[in-house]
Amino acid sequence: MRIGDGYGEMLLAALEEGGDILEIVERDDGLIMASRFGPEAYLAPFPKWPSRQRRALRLARGRVLDVGAGAGRIALRLQEKDRDVVAIDASPGAVEACRRRGVRDARVLRVEDVDESLGVFDTVVMYGNNLGLLASRTKARRLLRRLHAITSDRGRILGECLDPYEGAGAEHRAYHERNRRRGRMGGQLKIRIRYRDVATPWFDYLFLSREELGELLDGTGWRLARTIEDEPPLYIAVIEKEPRAPASRTG
Amino acid sequence: MRIGDGYGEMLLAALEEGGDILEIVERDDGLIMASRFGPEAYLAPFPKWPSRQRRALRLARGRVLDVGAGAGRIALRLQEKDRDVVAIDASPGAVEACRRRGVRDARVLRVEDVDESLGVFDTVVMYGNNLGLLASRTKARRLLRRLHAITSDRGRILGECLDPYEGAGAEHRAYHERNRRRGRMGGQLKIRIRYRDVATPWFDYLFLSREELGELLDGTGWRLARTIEDEPPLYIAVIEKEPRAPASRTG
Repeated sequence: MRIGDGYGEMLLAALEEGGDILEIVERDDGLIMASRFGPEAYLAPFPKWPSRQRRALRLARGRVLDVGAGAGRIALRLQEKDRDVVAIDASPGAVEACRRRGVRDARVLRVEDVDESLGVFDTVVMYGNNLGLLASRTKARRLLRRLHAITSDRGRILGECLDPYEGAGAEHRAYHERNRRRGRMGGQLKIRIRYRDVATPWFDYLFLSREELGELLDGTGWRLARTIEDEPPLYIAVIEKEPRAPASRTG
Repeated sequence: MRIGDGYGEMLLAALEEGGDILEIVERDDGLIMASRFGPEAYLAPFPKWPSRQRRALRLARGRVLDVGAGAGRIALRLQEKDRDVVAIDASPGAVEACRRRGVRDARVLRVEDVDESLGVFDTVVMYGNNLGLLASRTKARRLLRRLHAITSDRGRILGECLDPYEGAGAEHRAYHERNRRRGRMGGQLKIRIRYRDVATPWFDYLFLSREELGELLDGTGWRLARTIEDEPPLYIAVIEKEPRAPASRTG
């Protein structure tokens, strides 16, 4: 088994061969899940997206950062609408897929490495459960402050997530409990993607309840404005910047 | 991760939840494959089977042993035709699935443990690549002799297999080569099935070219009569008993 860009190889193969994507995700306790994604998940045009994703995208204003862009469907949709969008993904294969499909500005970049050199954004889109890239309590706060620094005063995050506790089976509840005993958040998954003879490195991926997300945002300059839901336990969190404290008149 | 009957749990879940089966097979070098099986692979009625399987089943005469019966589709088809069939599978979950679906005689039994207590069979069916249960050169010869002992003079094996060399990609060719260096047959795979938090134990599963199969049968009392093919590199081997040497008139 090679350690490498299994996720990117999977996307490029799907582009070349067509058809469904069978994505294999392995958790560090050995749980393994294969999910079949029809084109609607990675490659589809806007009308085939889940309703929550279409509805939330109306809230994407101004200049957009598409985080974990995958095969670029969000960036492509925004380009169609003449929007200024930068697509980033940690996977070189995913960025290659974005470029082949016509995304004009796609970059190999981990979200934790974004900085002012990218310019200022008004909206950060993290679809496909990519709010999970918050990774852990500590990393989340660091990342949220970083996103705060590269967004305008009307900055907004549209982050898709999954409530890990809603309807969780025994094997998931045991995992959440083990996490808590180790000081991790319940839904902090250590996972990797496997594709044929390649596995990605293990990485943390954070699933949060709406309440946990609200608490996590506290003190970061962001607040949970609302959620958009059509297929719970999935939800899209609309996260907005807290208004700046007004400058003191007497200061 | 538990070690257990992941294969059976997968089949029972498919029965209960309906829909496609996503089967995850892991090879001992870390290669992993998810395959989507629509109902035609495990649950479908006869008219939806691949043509080679329908054609070869016409050759199933007399009393039938269905080896690696899975969810029982072959046994069910033969029962419909008022045929006497015994379904065996090493997986308790698979046998439970057979029974729930109406297979009258389904037993938890590994093919290498069959013996005269089951009675005499005229046909042994090993569909779904189950000729792979031959496992290795040594085990194959032992198993073929055992099947010889529990079959009538007109005994016949209908064994489905895959030629591992036809169109094999680099990661497969390297595996074949490694096998040969270790004295194993090229297509001798060490694999396991993974389903959610369960993995089956590792087991050998043998893919053979038609030529290798012919050589392997040599001296076992069986011969390769012909193959039935519609989707190479898959094939169904029709394996028949060699005629007994006539009793010597002068002996």
